[in-house]
Amino acid sequence: VRAVVARNHQLIVDEVLPPTPSPGDALVALRACGICGSDLHTLRHAEHMTDVAAATGLENTFDPAADYHLGHEWVGEVLDLAESPDPVVVPAPVAVGDLVVSVPYLVRDPAFVPLGFSNDYYAGYAEQFLLTAALCLRVPNGLDPRRAALTEPMAVGLHTVNRSGIAAGTAAVVVGCGPIGLALIAWLTARGIEPIVASEPSERRRALATALGAHEVVDPRSESVVDAWRRVAGLGAMQPPVVFEAVGIPGMLDELMFTVPSQTRVMVAGVCMQPDTIRPLLGVVKEISLEFVFAYDTDEFAATLRAIAEGDVDVSALVTGTVGFDGAADAFATLERADEHVKILIEPDGPAAPTPMEL
Amino acid sequence: VRAVVARNHQLIVDEVLPPTPSPGDALVALRACGICGSDLHTLRHAEHMTDVAAATGLENTFDPAADYHLGHEWVGEVLDLAESPDPVVVPAPVAVGDLVVSVPYLVRDPAFVPLGFSNDYYAGYAEQFLLTAALCLRVPNGLDPRRAALTEPMAVGLHTVNRSGIAAGTAAVVVGCGPIGLALIAWLTARGIEPIVASEPSERRRALATALGAHEVVDPRSESVVDAWRRVAGLGAMQPPVVFEAVGIPGMLDELMFTVPSQTRVMVAGVCMQPDTIRPLLGVVKEISLEFVFAYDTDEFAATLRAIAEGDVDVSALVTGTVGFDGAADAFATLERADEHVKILIEPDGPAAPTPMEL
Repeated sequence: VRAVVARNHQLIVDEVLPPTPSPGDALVALRACGICGSDLHTLRHAEHMTDVAAATGLENTFDPAADYHLGHEWVGEVLDLAESPDPVVVPAPVAVGDLVVSVPYLVRDPAFVPLGFSNDYYAGYAEQFLLTAALCLRVPNGLDPRRAALTEPMAVGLHTVNRSGIAAGTAAVVVGCGPIGLALIAWLTARGIEPIVASEPSERRRALATALGAHEVVDPRSESVVDAWRRVAGLGAMQPPVVFEAVGIPGMLDELMFTVPSQTRVMVAGVCMQPDTIRPLLGVVKEISLEFVFAYDTDEFAATLRAIAEGDVDVSALVTGTVGFDGAADAFATLERADEHVKILIEPDGPAAPTPMEL
Repeated sequence: VRAVVARNHQLIVDEVLPPTPSPGDALVALRACGICGSDLHTLRHAEHMTDVAAATGLENTFDPAADYHLGHEWVGEVLDLAESPDPVVVPAPVAVGDLVVSVPYLVRDPAFVPLGFSNDYYAGYAEQFLLTAALCLRVPNGLDPRRAALTEPMAVGLHTVNRSGIAAGTAAVVVGCGPIGLALIAWLTARGIEPIVASEPSERRRALATALGAHEVVDPRSESVVDAWRRVAGLGAMQPPVVFEAVGIPGMLDELMFTVPSQTRVMVAGVCMQPDTIRPLLGVVKEISLEFVFAYDTDEFAATLRAIAEGDVDVSALVTGTVGFDGAADAFATLERADEHVKILIEPDGPAAPTPMEL
């Protein structure tokens, strides 16, 4: 089968051996897989990532010096189910022919395999890969699989908003309108949060943020997002906003600690891979909280698929392009530039170069 | 009147003009003033501090290049009250001859003056200084004024514990057993928190931590406090502890982010004056929260004085020495070494060199 393989910090299209299901696995054919910012981060900074993962006791970290397999935002079609010997423990909630999504973990003994960050297991950048059938969720009939492919990044947004505990009456500030920032705006809009004030250097992404419901979106080179919030909030600026950091580059935390008002909670959803410098004294005198967040739980993942299918949250603005395997490396380069695309889906029969597409 | 003045990063004993009360002020004679870790920090790093204060919009920051006046943990005797022209707005809750404490602010138009960090107003390192009478709390009859002098640092501990929301059933980890770490242990003990696991390099301070109720106190050079917590907590280690950082030196936040378990909240009470480097990725993958805390509110300050007076919280272990004005510089040097003393009280008639004392 064909796959886009990460090799020496590059993406190479290669022919790989077909995966062999174990009992309880679903063999899946890729329909579409979103390219995530953390795929870009990983291809560039995998060594940082595996160092930290090993240090924190995570098992099944991968070796970035060897080939590895990216892609954790997939939707696929079940080709085969390798029945578990224990159908009570592992009932198969899906059938051959179903379109499915799942949390990006493959159940193995003794530890889960993080799909999309593995040397050994293919994931969403391969024509075929293995999922744990019991973790699969059927894509509701009638839902465009390209929308279903947004379940994973939208679940990250939902988890971040859930952790923040934000409720009507409190303002939200969203720093950065990449896929995660836009996902946050979509959920904050669905929750009725007002005002939502966002910042983003890319004009294209600012327009998408507005389309998703942000009330004010500024170019941070012209006005800081905190100044914009003060301007928009009026007397509401007496109460600090919840700030959502969705950029993840060095210096961003310190800049926010410098500019946010006292008592601000900063939800850190951006994934900064490098060491970063802050001034703790800023945090102390303003009693700032930095609350780092990660991923989602299985309930949030399922709730996200349901909300997308029901139209409770609007994801159409998130997908801006499609590409086949041969154009994946180009798609990464395009996404690094940030101004042309937000989310590009890799599709097995996609075009040879990144091509604009709307849902 | 005599005063210990901060001048060019040194403490100089000098004769200064007597303070002139304005309406609403209480003129107070110093009885005792604790030396705070932030006094040491300020004398060494005042430039950092005033930079940050100015950047965050605080008014009435001081000029560290000119003489300034330290000391915010005082107890004093009211010598005179300059009646306010508006007794309804500012009733005097104290009378001449009363022993008083107060939050370290002097009410002035247009902004509060932070006493203990001012070029213009004397504070607890001077024989006489001004307080806002309406902010003064009378020391209950019979309470040793040296215990009352602990109201301010103990209020910092109470505020930090309040912000953490810790309740019985959750373990506490206290990093550093200086005055703030010990204050935290005293309050956590009063709240029935168990286990309280602390770390501190100084043998003297470890013994005080145990005396104040810590269940396990380790030397971090022998065992990390997180390892000690795991060892002590047993199955309780399934739930993350609340970690209280009371050291405030560069590198401590990163070390904690590296060692604490997932979902840990770190209450940052230590005041690190320098820029500091963290690895945000550690925070992300473990969903750590860094919650910076500062000072206390007036209710917490009053509740602290009451709790000390009622014996609800045990502060006797906190004071280890006394010194007169002439020995203040020596006392700073002794406290920097950390192994001999925890809290030294400056007393106008104190000895010429830091002298051990127990409450």
